[in-house]
Amino acid sequence: MSVQTTAQLQYSDTGELRHLLTTEGLSRQSYQRIFELADSLTETQGVRKLPVLRGKTIVLLFFEPSTRTRTTFEIAANRLSADVTVVSVASSATSKGESLFDTVETLQAMQADMFVVRHAQSGAAHLIAEHVAPNVSVVNAGDGCHAHPTQALLDMYTIRQKKGDVEGLRVAIVGDLLHSRVARSQIHALRALGAAQINLIGPQSLVPDRFAALGCTIHRDLRAGLAGVDVVMGLRMQRERMEGGLLPSNREYFHHYGLTRKRLDWAAENAIVMHPGPVNRGVEIDSDLMDDERSVILDQVTNGIAVRMAAMSLVLGRAWTVNG
Amino acid sequence: MSVQTTAQLQYSDTGELRHLLTTEGLSRQSYQRIFELADSLTETQGVRKLPVLRGKTIVLLFFEPSTRTRTTFEIAANRLSADVTVVSVASSATSKGESLFDTVETLQAMQADMFVVRHAQSGAAHLIAEHVAPNVSVVNAGDGCHAHPTQALLDMYTIRQKKGDVEGLRVAIVGDLLHSRVARSQIHALRALGAAQINLIGPQSLVPDRFAALGCTIHRDLRAGLAGVDVVMGLRMQRERMEGGLLPSNREYFHHYGLTRKRLDWAAENAIVMHPGPVNRGVEIDSDLMDDERSVILDQVTNGIAVRMAAMSLVLGRAWTVNG
Amino acid sequence: MSVQTTAQLQYSDTGELRHLLTTEGLSRQSYQRIFELADSLTETQGVRKLPVLRGKTIVLLFFEPSTRTRTTFEIAANRLSADVTVVSVASSATSKGESLFDTVETLQAMQADMFVVRHAQSGAAHLIAEHVAPNVSVVNAGDGCHAHPTQALLDMYTIRQKKGDVEGLRVAIVGDLLHSRVARSQIHALRALGAAQINLIGPQSLVPDRFAALGCTIHRDLRAGLAGVDVVMGLRMQRERMEGGLLPSNREYFHHYGLTRKRLDWAAENAIVMHPGPVNRGVEIDSDLMDDERSVILDQVTNGIAVRMAAMSLVLGRAWTVNG
Repeated sequence: MSVQTTAQLQYSDTGELRHLLTTEGLSRQSYQRIFELADSLTETQGVRKLPVLRGKTIVLLFFEPSTRTRTTFEIAANRLSADVTVVSVASSATSKGESLFDTVETLQAMQADMFVVRHAQSGAAHLIAEHVAPNVSVVNAGDGCHAHPTQALLDMYTIRQKKGDVEGLRVAIVGDLLHSRVARSQIHALRALGAAQINLIGPQSLVPDRFAALGCTIHRDLRAGLAGVDVVMGLRMQRERMEGGLLPSNREYFHHYGLTRKRLDWAAENAIVMHPGPVNRGVEIDSDLMDDERSVILDQVTNGIAVRMAAMSLVLGRAWTVNG
Repeated sequence: MSVQTTAQLQYSDTGELRHLLTTEGLSRQSYQRIFELADSLTETQGVRKLPVLRGKTIVLLFFEPSTRTRTTFEIAANRLSADVTVVSVASSATSKGESLFDTVETLQAMQADMFVVRHAQSGAAHLIAEHVAPNVSVVNAGDGCHAHPTQALLDMYTIRQKKGDVEGLRVAIVGDLLHSRVARSQIHALRALGAAQINLIGPQSLVPDRFAALGCTIHRDLRAGLAGVDVVMGLRMQRERMEGGLLPSNREYFHHYGLTRKRLDWAAENAIVMHPGPVNRGVEIDSDLMDDERSVILDQVTNGIAVRMAAMSLVLGRAWTVNG
Repeated sequence: MSVQTTAQLQYSDTGELRHLLTTEGLSRQSYQRIFELADSLTETQGVRKLPVLRGKTIVLLFFEPSTRTRTTFEIAANRLSADVTVVSVASSATSKGESLFDTVETLQAMQADMFVVRHAQSGAAHLIAEHVAPNVSVVNAGDGCHAHPTQALLDMYTIRQKKGDVEGLRVAIVGDLLHSRVARSQIHALRALGAAQINLIGPQSLVPDRFAALGCTIHRDLRAGLAGVDVVMGLRMQRERMEGGLLPSNREYFHHYGLTRKRLDWAAENAIVMHPGPVNRGVEIDSDLMDDERSVILDQVTNGIAVRMAAMSLVLGRAWTVNG
């Protein structure tokens, strides 16, 4: 068996998206289908509960805890009428000496149709996707520092909603890129959808020079990096992933890179500010700016439900049920 | 913005009950509507699952653990066909530096329709209710020592079921009033519904003199306090909320204030005994009395489902769906 | 009240199976009904969600954690459209001084229709079944070292699926019988269904001589015990239940009793190998054999859903809904 990249693995031989593992190599058409599906799923106002995934069993397989991400997938799956089972593996079978694959095979034998996987190790979702039966889909809900594709999809969907299109936009990503699975997924998505410029802003310790290889421009100075951009994406300081090193304190960080109302004026007129949440107020973003009309952070959360509903419907091949 | 009392906050400008935060200031008409709705919800015998809240998303937001209360709300919401998501916040986003309001705003952005809130701090449900969007309802499932309105509602519903009406009854509340959110909510409810007399029974350390200001008579002697009452309400000894002090031991407490079959004879004929549970058998109530026909403790639990179904339906404005 | 055996307790006066507590004394007809019901529940291909237990409330009452068992019952109950509530009692009411029976009575008062009980103490499910109201059913999901009847049922169902019938088969059970509730339940089931021979294989420390009283032949030598058998059932080494003693190390155990492809050739042609899971690969069973076509371990998991759906439907008296 030849080794497949994660990008290849998520498409079937006939070109259907059957897993959602990464935005790296995700086709523009796949973005388009997910966005249109999310549009149609939110246009059913008044009818929140849809029978799209009725009878499907979705296992939320969480090897690291995340209430926020778990809740969004649970709500999204409930609205599609799927049966949802949460399996937290820290306190579970692996402690009885069962391996990752045995856990997955066992749950698959219970006729799970989809695994939504969260894992502290990069590549975990890929490994599981290689392993599952042809009728089972895997959605990556965050693996180590690697990828968080549904977050990037909801970010792009939100930009499209606020700015009409991602194409041609100038975007800045500010903060802890080094430890961020979100940022990696965002950069792939922005490039696929034709963003005109991507500025990465932060100190050497959080934004190493090598990130330039992703087709981005690195700025150490916030003002220079924000100049003329249409979208500013903050990132969460991932203190729990950091190990010692010459990292800035919260106070130092905010002094140099904290986003405020005033500093956002350095960007283009009508620039929007985004953040994957949860925000450390006063560290990455000033409280005033959180509540400013240029902040679309809560729109991101709302869109996260619609985009996850769309992504889960699509990989399970149930897109038509909604389109009629 | 003028400061609203909790009583005002739970009614909309047009006088609809949109939150359930406290029984203080709850109108007699609101009690009446909840009781009638609970009646109609339990008269559908054989059909347990009702589509009243189908498509609604209810978040059980528990900042302190409570299996019993969580289970009753979960079962009640399931029977109304709502989608229920449990968010336990101890091990959650707040540990990533997210504030209470950010947690609430984020869940609200996921289109939660109702928060059922349990919190160790008095006033937490009020704060959240001030903060949510106009279409979102908050139900207080217990905040510190302040209030537990659904418990008081189910208690009144049970009294009404057993005694016909609360009006004119003489009621004794025995035990740890100091730490009890249940007792405060009961006293407001009993007064609103026209109880003729409310005796509070216990030692100074558990029933301070200031409770008389609530329109009650304080008794240090159990026999005197029980004389002629129609309803005896025990309270749980909240040892986990007590901090040192001159508190009676379990043994001392039972000696002076423990409810037994014999001692219940001091009350009026056909008096009933109630307890919010879980009971410490042999501390607040003797095991024999628990199983006596005058004990309506399990009826309280059963009614708790119906009353919570009614309260959730009412605040979400779905009362008509059941009434036809 | 005369003392009832567990076997008697699980049948109503009219001979209906109303609890599932043990395979000891389970009638051949009960096996037959469960197997036929499981057949019919899996023949609805394409329609996974059945309205059989719609409106029923099933409480998964777990006094010890078990993700695997909890998940199978949860998925099975979801597919039958029941409302499922998980109550983990370690961190719950019992810590507030509430007894086992008070917990059960309280949940019953919430109109639970079924308790699926897991408990570290042998006999816990029996005690609860003695205590519940006539309309409430108890399913034992594992009590101490005593019984795990749904596991034995799915094992028999799998043997029947692979071998046509249990009757006349020769079966070996290998490993830690001493601490295994699964093995006890399997032996009763194999005898009830007419297995021709049951060999128990293991060292004295794991298979004491007294097990011969169950109608089995004890073998200390793996080769001798496997000779000519049609079915080989491995057991999990229950290290967490063992207390010191002269137990073999994992390495020693595998050397003498580990199941491998080669060693399985000692059994009859087309012998199958089973295991209740989770498997300790390289201890009870070699990895190669796990993936061999003679391994039916994943079929057991799949059948576990169908058999649990059947058992829950049957004890709640809803078998007819499926049969038409």
